[in-house]
Amino acid sequence: MIKPTTRDERFIELAKELGFDIYDENAAGGHYAPLLRHGDELYVSGLVPRMNGKIHYPGRVGLELNLADAQAAASISAVRALALILDAVGSLDNVKSLVRITVYVKSTFDFVDLSEVANGASDVFTQVLGEAGKHTRTTVGVYQLPKNAPIEVDLIAALHPSAQ
Amino acid sequence: MIKPTTRDERFIELAKELGFDIYDENAAGGHYAPLLRHGDELYVSGLVPRMNGKIHYPGRVGLELNLADAQAAASISAVRALALILDAVGSLDNVKSLVRITVYVKSTFDFVDLSEVANGASDVFTQVLGEAGKHTRTTVGVYQLPKNAPIEVDLIAALHPSAQ
Amino acid sequence: MIKPTTRDERFIELAKELGFDIYDENAAGGHYAPLLRHGDELYVSGLVPRMNGKIHYPGRVGLELNLADAQAAASISAVRALALILDAVGSLDNVKSLVRITVYVKSTFDFVDLSEVANGASDVFTQVLGEAGKHTRTTVGVYQLPKNAPIEVDLIAALHPSAQ
Repeated sequence: MIKPTTRDERFIELAKELGFDIYDENAAGGHYAPLLRHGDELYVSGLVPRMNGKIHYPGRVGLELNLADAQAAASISAVRALALILDAVGSLDNVKSLVRITVYVKSTFDFVDLSEVANGASDVFTQVLGEAGKHTRTTVGVYQLPKNAPIEVDLIAALHPSAQ
Repeated sequence: MIKPTTRDERFIELAKELGFDIYDENAAGGHYAPLLRHGDELYVSGLVPRMNGKIHYPGRVGLELNLADAQAAASISAVRALALILDAVGSLDNVKSLVRITVYVKSTFDFVDLSEVANGASDVFTQVLGEAGKHTRTTVGVYQLPKNAPIEVDLIAALHPSAQ
Repeated sequence: MIKPTTRDERFIELAKELGFDIYDENAAGGHYAPLLRHGDELYVSGLVPRMNGKIHYPGRVGLELNLADAQAAASISAVRALALILDAVGSLDNVKSLVRITVYVKSTFDFVDLSEVANGASDVFTQVLGEAGKHTRTTVGVYQLPKNAPIEVDLIAALHPSAQ
C-alpha cells in the first residue's frame, strides 16, 4: 500500500485506523468552546479521549489501565485535537507548529512513567504533521479528571500567517 | 429592577452580590505578579478564591465541599480575575476574548464532576462579558492547592488592539 | 567580592554555585522539544530538576522532601529553563519578561505550602533577570510527576523584538 503523503491524508488514515469519525460531533462537555482562534494561534481546550460519544479507557493509569492503554487513550485525545484544528482551518497544512501541549495523566500514587504515556499523544502529532508537529510539552500526573477520563490533552497551535 | 447593561456594570453588580470588594487589595501571595500584560494579551496568575483577605470554602471538593460550594468558590476566583483585568485596563470592554482558562479543582480520589465545578467560573465570564467571555478551558483534579484552597483559576485574555 | 552585574554573569555565577553545567546536554526525556520559539515568545517544556543527567531531590514534598529541599529542587528547574533560553537566544538580555510560569509540586495529601515551594523558582528568575524576571505564576500540587521528580516548571518568556 502507498503511504498517504499529505498531512490531511495521513490524519484521515490514522483516524480511520482508530475508528474515529472526524465528521462527528466534537463538542465540549461544559460551558466553553473546544477551540478558539487568537491571531495566528489556535487554543484547544483540554480534551479527554472521547470518541463517538463515549470516553475510551476510563479509569486510573497504573490501576485500571496499563501503559499501552494509557498511550492509546492519549492518541485519541491527540486525534480529537487534530480533528478540531482541521475543522477550524480547513487543512492541517495551515499548522506551523504546536507551540505547547500539556498532557494530564490520572495516575496512581506511584506510577511514574508519565512521559511514556504522553508519547502516545506526541507521536500522533509527529506522525501526522511531520516537522510542524514538533512541540514543547508539559506532562503531569493528576488526581482526577473529568468523567473519570485517564488522560486530558490541551494545546496551542501556531498557524501560518496566511491561514484563513 | 433594570438589569445592568454594560460589562462593567454587570461585573460591579455581580461582585456586590458576592460581597467582593473590587477596590480591595488583590495582591499575589508569593514572589510573582498577579497580572502581566504582553502585547495585546493579559496573563493572570492562578487565583484561589480569596476575598477580603480570606480564602473562602477551604478544603477538598467531594469531602469538605459539595458541588455547589465548589462552584461558588470557582465563581470567586473568576470575579478576582475580572477585578484584576478591570484594574489593569480600565474597563472590561477592552477584553476581546478569554483565550484560555485553566481550572484546578482539589478533589477526592473519586470525585469526577470537575466540569460542573468549572462551570462556576465559566458562567461568571459569560454572564459579565457576553460573547467576549467565550473561552477554551482545561479542567483537572489536583491533589493539593496553595493555602488549602479548593479551586485555582488562571487565564489568558486577549485585548482589543486599541486597549490602553 | 564584586557581585556580577549582567544577567548572563549572574546566571553563570548562580549555576556554578548549584553545580549546574550550563554547557551540558539539556535534552527532553520524551518525544518533544525542550524549547520552541514562536514569534517573540519562547515556550519552555515542563522541566524537572535534572542536573548532570540525574534528577535531584526525587520524591514527594511533605514526605521524602521538606520545604527547603523542595525549594532547592524548584531552583534547579528554574536554572535549567534559563540555560535553555540562554542557549536559544545567546544572552538573557534578550528576555523582556516571563509572562507565565507554572510550578507543579508533587505533594502529600495535606502539604499546603506550595507557594513557598514555588518561590524557589521565582527567586531564581528575579535574582538573574531583575525587573524582566517579573512573571505571573500558577502553582498546584499534583499527584505524580515524570521520573518521580518532586517539581516541574514550565514557562513562556517574551523576548525583545530585536532578539535574534
